[in-house]
Amino acid sequence: MKREKGLLIVLSGPSGVGKGTVRKELFTDKDLDLQYSISMTTRQPRDGEVDGVDYFFRTKEEFEALIEQNKLLEWAEFVGNYYGTPVDYVKETIEAGKDVLLEIEVQGAMQVKKSFPEGVFIFLAPPSLSELRNRIVGRGTETEDVIHSRMLMAKEELEMMDEYDYVVENDTVEMACERIKAIVTSENCRRERIAKIYKRLMEVEE
Amino acid sequence: MKREKGLLIVLSGPSGVGKGTVRKELFTDKDLDLQYSISMTTRQPRDGEVDGVDYFFRTKEEFEALIEQNKLLEWAEFVGNYYGTPVDYVKETIEAGKDVLLEIEVQGAMQVKKSFPEGVFIFLAPPSLSELRNRIVGRGTETEDVIHSRMLMAKEELEMMDEYDYVVENDTVEMACERIKAIVTSENCRRERIAKIYKRLMEVEE
Repeated sequence: MKREKGLLIVLSGPSGVGKGTVRKELFTDKDLDLQYSISMTTRQPRDGEVDGVDYFFRTKEEFEALIEQNKLLEWAEFVGNYYGTPVDYVKETIEAGKDVLLEIEVQGAMQVKKSFPEGVFIFLAPPSLSELRNRIVGRGTETEDVIHSRMLMAKEELEMMDEYDYVVENDTVEMACERIKAIVTSENCRRERIAKIYKRLMEVEE
Repeated sequence: MKREKGLLIVLSGPSGVGKGTVRKELFTDKDLDLQYSISMTTRQPRDGEVDGVDYFFRTKEEFEALIEQNKLLEWAEFVGNYYGTPVDYVKETIEAGKDVLLEIEVQGAMQVKKSFPEGVFIFLAPPSLSELRNRIVGRGTETEDVIHSRMLMAKEELEMMDEYDYVVENDTVEMACERIKAIVTSENCRRERIAKIYKRLMEVEE
């Protein structure tokens, strides 16, 4: 396939929709050969977690300096800790012609879109609201109140669908992954991504 | 898959690139289930050709009346006869939720784009200019002059690539068809095609 750069693929969607499961399955696909973007955080490493493998572990001061320098593609504060995506790794990887997949929350995805509109923004959607509720309940540990507030949040997050390039229904993990693979193949055929290099190759020949 | 309408897929590209072969292969694919748009012509039926099956055979007057009434998605005159695509069949089929594939020349494709910008415009491209030349020569019956003028035309037609949504390299028929299938799957996940119906389904449930 003729192309100048890899793709930045942003996989997002409401909480409970199954982003993590789909992401894990995508990373087992040899044809796709996706690159994993390691997140940065200020939280303490848990047992067995390695800096530069599981996360980049940084101090709050270091993290805030990176925010200042625009070195994070997206970031958020969660329970007193920062989490974010370092921009340099993503840029270097796609410049090297490889595809990077980010699996992030909808708010983070919207931040990425601002600085990286040429990314491929995929919204993973539940087959139905009742199915989403089943999945949230399915985790087993939540009270009725927590489930209710999660559902309210999920409905709000569903509205964010309008900001994405694609909506992929997560009816089954297998089907969702097939659709995402098709999207990657298809995006690599998009004229604006390849026409320039294609024409250059045609001229060289003459 | 949730969607309101079928897709109009326009497959085009320079002469000699192999559009016909790719189109035939796509029509054998049961998953794609593409509908064939029967062309209209003013030329005489050949032995065995049936009106409404191979072509819609019409008189010059009938054809010109349809041009007047904007009832043709695209049309051209070729060696004294008209050829064109009736718009009604295409519209009815996609309204019924089925995908229609048109395989047409680049000039015709540009006409379709004017009246049907929501179509999926795929430019089939040769792997290289020398390969395109091989394919034109490969037909065996052309003189050097004819080959030269075909190559000049093909180079001009390659410039039309910029007007398309996708560029699919026809390195092998099999690979080209795989890419086109991925494009169809991917287009059916495009947010602007499905977000509205998706949200409506989500609301009904509440």
